[in-house]
Formats: sequence, structure tokens, C-alpha cells
Amino acid sequence: MPLPISLQDVRAAAGRLAGVAHRTPVLTSRRADERAGAQLFFKCENLQRMGAFKFRGAYNALAQFTAEQRRAGVITFSSGNHAQAIALAAQLLDMPSVIVMPADAPPAKLAATRAYQAGRADSEVVLYDRYREDREAIGRRVAAERGMTLIPPFDHPHVMAGQGTAALELMEEAGSLDALLVCVGGGGLVSGCAVAALGLQPGIAVYGVEPAAGNDVQRSVARGEIVRIDVPDTIADGAQTQAPGKLTFEVIRQCVRGMLTVSDAQLVAAMRFFAEAMKLVVEPTGCLAAAAAFERVVDLRGQRVGVILSGGNVDLVRYGRWLAGEPD
Amino acid sequence: MPLPISLQDVRAAAGRLAGVAHRTPVLTSRRADERAGAQLFFKCENLQRMGAFKFRGAYNALAQFTAEQRRAGVITFSSGNHAQAIALAAQLLDMPSVIVMPADAPPAKLAATRAYQAGRADSEVVLYDRYREDREAIGRRVAAERGMTLIPPFDHPHVMAGQGTAALELMEEAGSLDALLVCVGGGGLVSGCAVAALGLQPGIAVYGVEPAAGNDVQRSVARGEIVRIDVPDTIADGAQTQAPGKLTFEVIRQCVRGMLTVSDAQLVAAMRFFAEAMKLVVEPTGCLAAAAAFERVVDLRGQRVGVILSGGNVDLVRYGRWLAGEPD
Repeated sequence: MPLPISLQDVRAAAGRLAGVAHRTPVLTSRRADERAGAQLFFKCENLQRMGAFKFRGAYNALAQFTAEQRRAGVITFSSGNHAQAIALAAQLLDMPSVIVMPADAPPAKLAATRAYQAGRADSEVVLYDRYREDREAIGRRVAAERGMTLIPPFDHPHVMAGQGTAALELMEEAGSLDALLVCVGGGGLVSGCAVAALGLQPGIAVYGVEPAAGNDVQRSVARGEIVRIDVPDTIADGAQTQAPGKLTFEVIRQCVRGMLTVSDAQLVAAMRFFAEAMKLVVEPTGCLAAAAAFERVVDLRGQRVGVILSGGNVDLVRYGRWLAGEPD
Repeated sequence: MPLPISLQDVRAAAGRLAGVAHRTPVLTSRRADERAGAQLFFKCENLQRMGAFKFRGAYNALAQFTAEQRRAGVITFSSGNHAQAIALAAQLLDMPSVIVMPADAPPAKLAATRAYQAGRADSEVVLYDRYREDREAIGRRVAAERGMTLIPPFDHPHVMAGQGTAALELMEEAGSLDALLVCVGGGGLVSGCAVAALGLQPGIAVYGVEPAAGNDVQRSVARGEIVRIDVPDTIADGAQTQAPGKLTFEVIRQCVRGMLTVSDAQLVAAMRFFAEAMKLVVEPTGCLAAAAAFERVVDLRGQRVGVILSGGNVDLVRYGRWLAGEPD
């Protein structure tokens, strides 16, 4: 099966995002390098607009809507950051948005999503129970009723190509890399980044990192077909997906060298490291890739390694307790 | 009285720091602008090496030592960030260092300072009681005994010129500014930045910001002479100075348009804002300038305003509790 996106698609997305998305900094840290035994280049997508890489894919998708699609607007379902990304992109492109979100999403993410829709009577957040209801079915029903275009959180070529611009920028800045570590929920980020990275540098080793409790992609790759798991119990709420997408799985299968996992305790240790040593707030999901490097889950000794810090949207009270070492 | 430093000194410092100090990013935030009613450009010195702007001044001073001075090494006294800065600069320039630190300095700062001296038998941290002993006297005594050169935390032309490079870089990146807000402890940062800013753009309004409980500089400016206060009770530990220096006071008197103050509660609110909206860990002292903008302590409506986030070195447990809204 041919890949659903190419380096050319990622480059075109970069053109659409120029001057709209932040070109986030690439930071380095001697202490991080000592921890990992490698030279790490952190792409700080926690400093991206709305606090996560998701803005890239959402804007790249919405910017390609026809005039008619723009009038009816966009609908999506998301556990958080994609919701905010679509709401912000819709606001910037002046179109209605409906966001289907789990009722137990972090309060900060719900509030931020609604803030981007403020002042638009044609836009709203629809809540659902993620342990009982099917968000995709709800999304498809509302889309049909209102004539809106559904942009799913990861399994869409325009979304995947948009996310890949993070790797494009990272490699432009850091130069040649031996490996690239990327967190994996549904696989939109890792698939876009893998296509960009391999397109620029065919020998690079791209690794995906999941929470140990939610290794649906690791299992899918091992089995050679998409495996669906129960909603995983992990603090990495952006990676609580139950299965990769059809398109993202195909890219992962062909382009990702290995799927790694880390524990929630390792994510908390990484969050504390980023706050203390690098002065960065990184959400649990955003720590997946870095935690794999810090815990040396794969041998990267002496290598030049790109690490994507995917986002920083975390409930402040929970986050503060993690930093203070108090019970969650 | 002529100014002790010039724009030319700041430019020379920038040359010494090139490729050694980080060129820290200048970040913007729509939410921050709404809060302040102005367009803010944040110079992120919390992302500087060792977590604060202090590295600039320390390195600029040590890089100008003679060969003989280098052999004997450097001594300093500091409530925290200058200590780490001197220890790191001494490590990079391969010279002995003795740091006189208050016994109640944040544990993270003590540990970090010692880490930079690791492996050097000729380097050490000397603790003192800041409520009973005179750190300057201790520093002078050890300097005399060991033939070391004393580099004080702020009242030194090379230190002041080094700190000014933060404003130089900020204005190169942000372009023309109407105002610049800078935190004030002993006045090293604000005096260097004021000289740089006014040199580049004579009409700019430079404001210094102190904790309300420790407004020694505000009082000194009002009185027209240096006023000495008791050790102030504030969470802004980097601004617990009792008086400005002779050199820094002269620059402040001539170049700073106004001295402002904010409360500890306003610093906590700013810390929470930076973590939540901008994903940055900023220490209490580092929030002084931003808090003045957020609280609209001076009228900056519609202006383009540079704001220096001076550092991010904060004890993680206390910081986590502040974020979680728990008792300190």
C-alpha cells in the first residue's frame, strides 16, 4: 500500500503554517544529555499556539476547506488538544466549530476550547461519556445533521502532513540526526514526522513511544494488523487512544523502526526534570518521547537524537501535586 | 557623575558571550497581552544556562581576568543565582571558585552550585547566616586570605555590562519598544539593560520592579541617596537585597523612569499564569517585571513592552504547592 502522505505534503503544510503557527524553539540541556547518554534536541511544541503540536494539523486541514465547507464549518471529536487546535484554527479562519469532547477531559482543556469559541453562537462543545459512548458515531451524526466537515484527530492526510512540520523544523535547526523519538496516541504526529524525517534523511531511526498501559500501536505492529484495546488507564491523557488509525498504522508499519513504552511513574519523573532543569511545563503525554530517552529504553548511546515535546496542557492542580511529590 | 558603563561595554560583553551563553527565545502570548492591555515581548532568561540571566554578567567578568587572577580564582557572595553563575563560569574557564551562600538559600540552588564545582578540590561553598552575618565582610576576608578576586553579584561594571546583553538581544529581536520592565534586586540587571536600551533607543521608558516588601531601590530613588532596609520578607528570594549598589544606584537614578512594586500574591498569580498559559517555569523574582504588567501598576495601554523573565530556579516542592494552590 502506498503511503498516504509524502514529504511534499509536509512541505506544502509548512507553507500554509508559515506566519500562523509558532516556529517553536529547539532547546538543549547538558543535564538531559547526561541523563540519556546521548545528545538530545528538544522540539518544544509545548510552546506552540494553544500549547501543543495539534495546531499544525488542524490548521493545515481547515486551510484547505472549500468556500462551501467553510460556511458550514468543522466538527471533530478529541480527548483534548485536538479540540483546542480545531477551535483555534476555526476561529482564525472564521468558521463555525463543534467539538465532541469526553466529559472527563481535563477542566483546563475544556475551558480553553470554549474560550476559542467565545462570541460565536454557531460554535459549541458537545460532551460525551468516553467509557460508554462512541465519539466517532456522535461526530458523524452531528456532521450529517449540520452539513459540517469532520476532521478527525489523527487519521486524515492533511492532519498527518501538518503534524509532520514539527519534524521538518526540528531537522532544519538541529541538522543531521541519528534518531527521532515521538509520542504516539493515534499516530498522527509520529506518522507525519516519520515521513518528513525519512524524506530528509533516509537512514534516520524513528521510534514511537506509548504509555505502557496503552500500547495499542505496539501490539498492532507486532500482530501486523490493528489491535483495539480498552480505554487505557494512564496519566498520558493524549495517548488514551484505543487503536491507531488505518492511515497512521500504515505509515507506522512501514516507517517506524520500533515502538517503545514507558510507565506513568517515568512520565512523572520526566515532568519533574523538565520543570527543574529546563524550566518547561510539559504534559504527561508530551513527556513520552523524552522519558524513553531518559530511561534508555532503546540504545541511543552517543547519538544525536531529536525528541518531540508534544504539548504542555495540564491541569495546574494535578501538575503542581506531581511536582511537589504529593499523592495525585 | 558619569555612568559606569556604556552601550559599547554591553556590546563588548555580547561578543564575549557569543557561542557561550544561550541566545534565549523571545516569546509572545495573546493571553498575556489581553491581561496587560499591551503587546508584551518576554525575554526568557529562565531558559538561560544555569536557569537565569546571571550567567551573562558572571561570565563577562571572569572572561576578563588576567592569567594571574585565573590561577587564584574567583570568590563571590550570593543569595542564589549569581552563585550558580559564578560556579558555572569558573568551571567553563577552568578556575577555582569559592561561593559564600546564605544557609537558608533554596536547596535546589545550593545543590546546583555544588554540582558545578564537582571534581575540583580547590572549589567550595561557604555557608553563612544572612540574618546575623555580613556576607560582604566574609567574602572580603576569604578573598584576602586566598588571593582570590571578588566578583560581587551586582555592583561591578563587568557584571552590569554582561546583564545588559539580555536587553540588547531582546531589542534586536522584538524591534522598537515603548517600554522595558526589569526586575530589581541589587540593580545589576536593570542598570545594564537600561544603558543598553537607552543607547539603542533613547526614548524608551525603562521601569524597575521590586517586591513591595523590599522596595529599597524605590525608597533610595525617592530619597536621592542609598537607603538600607532590613532583609525583606518576600518569596522573591533574588530580590531580598537590602540596598542597591553605588554603581547600580547611579545608573538607576539617571536612566530608570520609575520604580514599581508588586506583592507576593501577585507574583504567585503570575507564576501560575506562566505555567498554565505559556508552559514556562518562572521563579518568583523572575515574575516581578511581568506581574507589574499584568497588574497594570503603570499605564502601558497599547504599548509595545519588553519584559525580562529573569530566571526559573525555584524549589520544586514549594513551586508545585504554589501551582496547586496549597499553603506554602
